[in-house]
Amino acid sequence: MRAINPATGESFGDEFARSTRDELAQMAEAALEVVDVLADAPSAQLAGFLDDFAMRLESDRDEIAAIAHAETALPLTPRLREIEFNRTTGQLRMAANGLRDESWREVAVDANNNLRSTLVPLGGAVLCLGPCNFPLAYNGVSGGDFCSAIMARNPVIAKAHPSHPNTTARMFAHAVAARDAASLPPASVQMFFDCANEDGEALLAHRGVAALGFTGSRAAGVRLKSVCDALGKPASLEMASINPVFVASNALTARHDAIADAWTASLLMAGGQQCTKPGVIFVSGIDAAARFIARAEHNARAVAPAVLLSESIRTYLSDSISAWKNVGASIRCGGNASSPGIRWEPTLLSVDAAFAALHRDLLHHEAFGPLGVIVICDSDAQLVEFARALDGQLAGTIVSDASDANTRHALQRALRFKVGRMLDEAMPTGVVVSNAMVHGGPFPATGDARFTAVGLPASAKRFSKTLCWDRCRA
Amino acid sequence: MRAINPATGESFGDEFARSTRDELAQMAEAALEVVDVLADAPSAQLAGFLDDFAMRLESDRDEIAAIAHAETALPLTPRLREIEFNRTTGQLRMAANGLRDESWREVAVDANNNLRSTLVPLGGAVLCLGPCNFPLAYNGVSGGDFCSAIMARNPVIAKAHPSHPNTTARMFAHAVAARDAASLPPASVQMFFDCANEDGEALLAHRGVAALGFTGSRAAGVRLKSVCDALGKPASLEMASINPVFVASNALTARHDAIADAWTASLLMAGGQQCTKPGVIFVSGIDAAARFIARAEHNARAVAPAVLLSESIRTYLSDSISAWKNVGASIRCGGNASSPGIRWEPTLLSVDAAFAALHRDLLHHEAFGPLGVIVICDSDAQLVEFARALDGQLAGTIVSDASDANTRHALQRALRFKVGRMLDEAMPTGVVVSNAMVHGGPFPATGDARFTAVGLPASAKRFSKTLCWDRCRA
Repeated sequence: MRAINPATGESFGDEFARSTRDELAQMAEAALEVVDVLADAPSAQLAGFLDDFAMRLESDRDEIAAIAHAETALPLTPRLREIEFNRTTGQLRMAANGLRDESWREVAVDANNNLRSTLVPLGGAVLCLGPCNFPLAYNGVSGGDFCSAIMARNPVIAKAHPSHPNTTARMFAHAVAARDAASLPPASVQMFFDCANEDGEALLAHRGVAALGFTGSRAAGVRLKSVCDALGKPASLEMASINPVFVASNALTARHDAIADAWTASLLMAGGQQCTKPGVIFVSGIDAAARFIARAEHNARAVAPAVLLSESIRTYLSDSISAWKNVGASIRCGGNASSPGIRWEPTLLSVDAAFAALHRDLLHHEAFGPLGVIVICDSDAQLVEFARALDGQLAGTIVSDASDANTRHALQRALRFKVGRMLDEAMPTGVVVSNAMVHGGPFPATGDARFTAVGLPASAKRFSKTLCWDRCRA
Repeated sequence: MRAINPATGESFGDEFARSTRDELAQMAEAALEVVDVLADAPSAQLAGFLDDFAMRLESDRDEIAAIAHAETALPLTPRLREIEFNRTTGQLRMAANGLRDESWREVAVDANNNLRSTLVPLGGAVLCLGPCNFPLAYNGVSGGDFCSAIMARNPVIAKAHPSHPNTTARMFAHAVAARDAASLPPASVQMFFDCANEDGEALLAHRGVAALGFTGSRAAGVRLKSVCDALGKPASLEMASINPVFVASNALTARHDAIADAWTASLLMAGGQQCTKPGVIFVSGIDAAARFIARAEHNARAVAPAVLLSESIRTYLSDSISAWKNVGASIRCGGNASSPGIRWEPTLLSVDAAFAALHRDLLHHEAFGPLGVIVICDSDAQLVEFARALDGQLAGTIVSDASDANTRHALQRALRFKVGRMLDEAMPTGVVVSNAMVHGGPFPATGDARFTAVGLPASAKRFSKTLCWDRCRA
């Protein structure tokens, strides 16, 4: 396996080897040997490891960001070098703080019955599989799942994403240096580049692996979910979402251009390759919708073709647009591949409510990349019907004026059960790492609506088990 | 379907009908219609419902306990009439308090970013399937899952257990009266007696059902888990567990008789039909083990054959003992069915460590009823090896003297990852309903080691989803 620069289509850098099933089993065995060390390590030792790792990353900021840019074509600055980089080191330091202040461990004491309960580690490694689109902040060797797993005192086995192996190798070298400097055993943090699917499943089944942290496509996520479910091992799965936006009629009439501007900016950010991309917008009112669409189309036509992260994303996007075309949807603009490298034109589709309801599977189908679908509704009541019929979603946005209050409340009542994060006016891209963030939502957006993948300390609970000490002596 | 008195084997009482798939779908549709009512109801209304329900049950204590005794043959007093009854009404009142004080909803506020997150209801009914062995405190219409679901503001659809339909009908009548008195819509609490397996699965798949609460056998639990997993719906599954006891060598030498007394009392309580039955005891030291076994055998022989809850439990127990016999295990005492009705002799098996390790599948296989397995270990190191190789368990007990401290600590280190509740000296039967209780544990004891089925408020989190309000106006 070698990296590809998606802006040019050319491969570059080292060849990365595929690990064998035996090599993966050895990693799992090694992880099992260190679960007690991590569970019992002084907080300062683990926190120090994370702080030191963050500092080592910062000392190599320019080179890491440059490699990530070459592998992903995401904007070097401020996106990679500042925003995503600082989010990554910020998360590492939040996890370090969570190790120093373990108040998040849900300690409960019942003195009358001499019961004490608390969250403890899982007793095996967390297998961390990051996505293609956040090479730093979601990387298996440095991202949110990594932070959550270590904060919960579990060893990590990470798999590098094939779209950024060089970035991962470089970051992992810093993790290893920090791990060794902190005198943590080598199996505390391990990484491999590639494996056969069936060997990855064997790794999940190994008793040295206790849980999975995954961010990626629905197809891969559902496959891994079924493997973990059969094993009875917790899996944190962040998968696809259309993150719908609902625009009430009065707001649309009053502000169609501004709403179109906000939506297209959010939609096309990072080439539309964000898990929180507002992929579908439901607008209420035929006349205002026409003005909204004209403006959105104008905006999209002004944006250059996006560089996509990989050829497989381009194929998937192309297939998704073809599926809409095959049922007769009208393409407003874009719709074609571009060059050099792996590019795609900003693409908008519009459909009416009846057509959308007829093709709800397509409507609920996320397509990573610069594709937005506009659903023209006759009335606010139709907005609410679409909200009630939604699949689970990471996020949902309501755009409304004061005179739309009834619609807003009806949408809020519906969306609270459908989304992990409900936005009022704001577009969903841009996830603040905060103790009050929820980056989650019902299946199939994630595997379990009771957890969040972003926001420490809550995200560390995904990789903790609960334990009661019943009448135990000190 | 009619009830059977297991003490006599005779059926009695009303014939209960099987619900059709359409009837179940109507219940799910109706539940979906009331999710907003329950989510938005004043706390006092829901809390008042639960308090009133508890009071109505208490006003009918004698009759409910008498029916439950006739259906289960569990001791009328104090077990059913006092202990389990008071636990049931106590749980209802704890849930009422959890509705008045909603501080358990994990509210997090980030004022700088205008983020607020909290636990909210699931947006559909919780299907509550209680077990045979706790007709009151785990009943789908009154037990821990019912309390958790209502406290989390979800409608309940309960299925009566076939071993106590008359008890369930009587308790449900009080739930209905309290529900109506509180002006809650009928679909807030619904119940059915029986259905075909495939119709139950269709009910789980209905969008009006959001989650499952199940307590019962591993076979049924694993089947329901796979259904819920494929649907991506949360399932709380409390299944089988052997709840191992580990006795260190010095403690065994010093206290073999007292330990045998404590173990056999816990083992044979309620005919060994408790999910926390200490089904397997690992004892260290050949000579002391012989004395321990002699005492345990003496105790077991002094106990009358146990009345079992159902013919299927007797069949399963008989098959489990046959499986041990078939591989050559020696029966120390008991081993046979008895009469009248559905009875079984207290039965003890003993095996040595090598034999147990060779037949670990049998060893980890729970058999409800008065069966205990003694594993004779040469050394404390063998105890630790067995602990490290355990499946997930609800509970695990360590018996040790001061001079066994090293063994105790090694066992604690191993068991913390294997059990939901770790006991020091105390036998595992008897689960205190407390905020610090954990009645959980890794798969296959339950479906998810991150939750507890007993102990409010924590158990209500099983049936809640997390939601962030991102920059929302009031």
